[in-house]
Amino acid sequence: MDYYSNQISKLIEELSCLPGIGTKSASRLAFHLIHMPVEEVKRLADTMVEARENVRYCSECYTLTDQELCPICRNEARDHKTIMVVETTRDLAAYEKTGKYEGVYHVLHGAISPMLGIGPEDVKLKELMERLRKDVDEVIIATNSSLEGETTAMYISKLIKPTGIKVSRIASGVPVGGDLEYIDEVTLLRALEGRTEI
Amino acid sequence: MDYYSNQISKLIEELSCLPGIGTKSASRLAFHLIHMPVEEVKRLADTMVEARENVRYCSECYTLTDQELCPICRNEARDHKTIMVVETTRDLAAYEKTGKYEGVYHVLHGAISPMLGIGPEDVKLKELMERLRKDVDEVIIATNSSLEGETTAMYISKLIKPTGIKVSRIASGVPVGGDLEYIDEVTLLRALEGRTEI
Repeated sequence: MDYYSNQISKLIEELSCLPGIGTKSASRLAFHLIHMPVEEVKRLADTMVEARENVRYCSECYTLTDQELCPICRNEARDHKTIMVVETTRDLAAYEKTGKYEGVYHVLHGAISPMLGIGPEDVKLKELMERLRKDVDEVIIATNSSLEGETTAMYISKLIKPTGIKVSRIASGVPVGGDLEYIDEVTLLRALEGRTEI
Repeated sequence: MDYYSNQISKLIEELSCLPGIGTKSASRLAFHLIHMPVEEVKRLADTMVEARENVRYCSECYTLTDQELCPICRNEARDHKTIMVVETTRDLAAYEKTGKYEGVYHVLHGAISPMLGIGPEDVKLKELMERLRKDVDEVIIATNSSLEGETTAMYISKLIKPTGIKVSRIASGVPVGGDLEYIDEVTLLRALEGRTEI
């Protein structure tokens, strides 16, 4: 790319290492940045570095936050006796967007995958078990509906059952608005198995 | 987004102002940045600011570069008597990627658009006419095949014709590998008009 200046090429190259950004998006972004007011570019650059330097795990639920406790764990109006187990902070955000879940979370930062060599000790599972020593009514397992997510759900459920704490798993089925014609067979069978009386 | 920490929310918000990046991509990028080694984040931030601060227009062809003259204008092996007029530096890059064009460029940084109130004085056209005082054989107009691009091409052509310098326009037609069935009528008619004997 010597037809661009070195600095533009370098910027395009570094941007294209980010996930979901190919060479074309990277060059569009680079030219956008070059035309932005210099203060805005500096602000974005500072925000990136500051976020990277200050963000850490919540000491309670292990979501990413910039304080000792995340806003959800700090919130006394939430039901701290119900813990939803998710794989990532983005999954937590997905449930928070519904605005209807009132419990707290536990972020595993991954899922158990024997295929990829990711064992129970590689996710925040020990930390979850530690939390269950306190007064907890229910653990809702909301790991993904993938092989790894299901494996993790089974594993956690077996681990918690002996403690007597209620363990549940979010439902699998046809997504709302989903057209049966385009939905895979496994999901269709799951939806059938999980049918409820109306 | 108060379920993320302030710094993550701020990062997602600033990233989602970039072109082609919606809230979902922005949050994916933000979480990627937060998990990257801190040195890499700092390097990317520095590259952004440096590029923004040092990149300017080539004093000859007005492409974006970090030196007085861009690598193409500095290159004596190129044919400096043939000037290809393009709308943006990215269009220049598109032609450079072909590796077959040996002339130099002139970047207008826009196209004339009476609809949007962009006149000839808003693009680098005066600068192009200035260059034509030197020894130039041909001006190849490679503005986009859009209404604005065509308007600009006509305008430039009328401006240059009296000087006696050859003016040409890149061909419009069916893209190579394009399926006639899916090509719009205007392009099909252009391709017909521009047919050449074989």
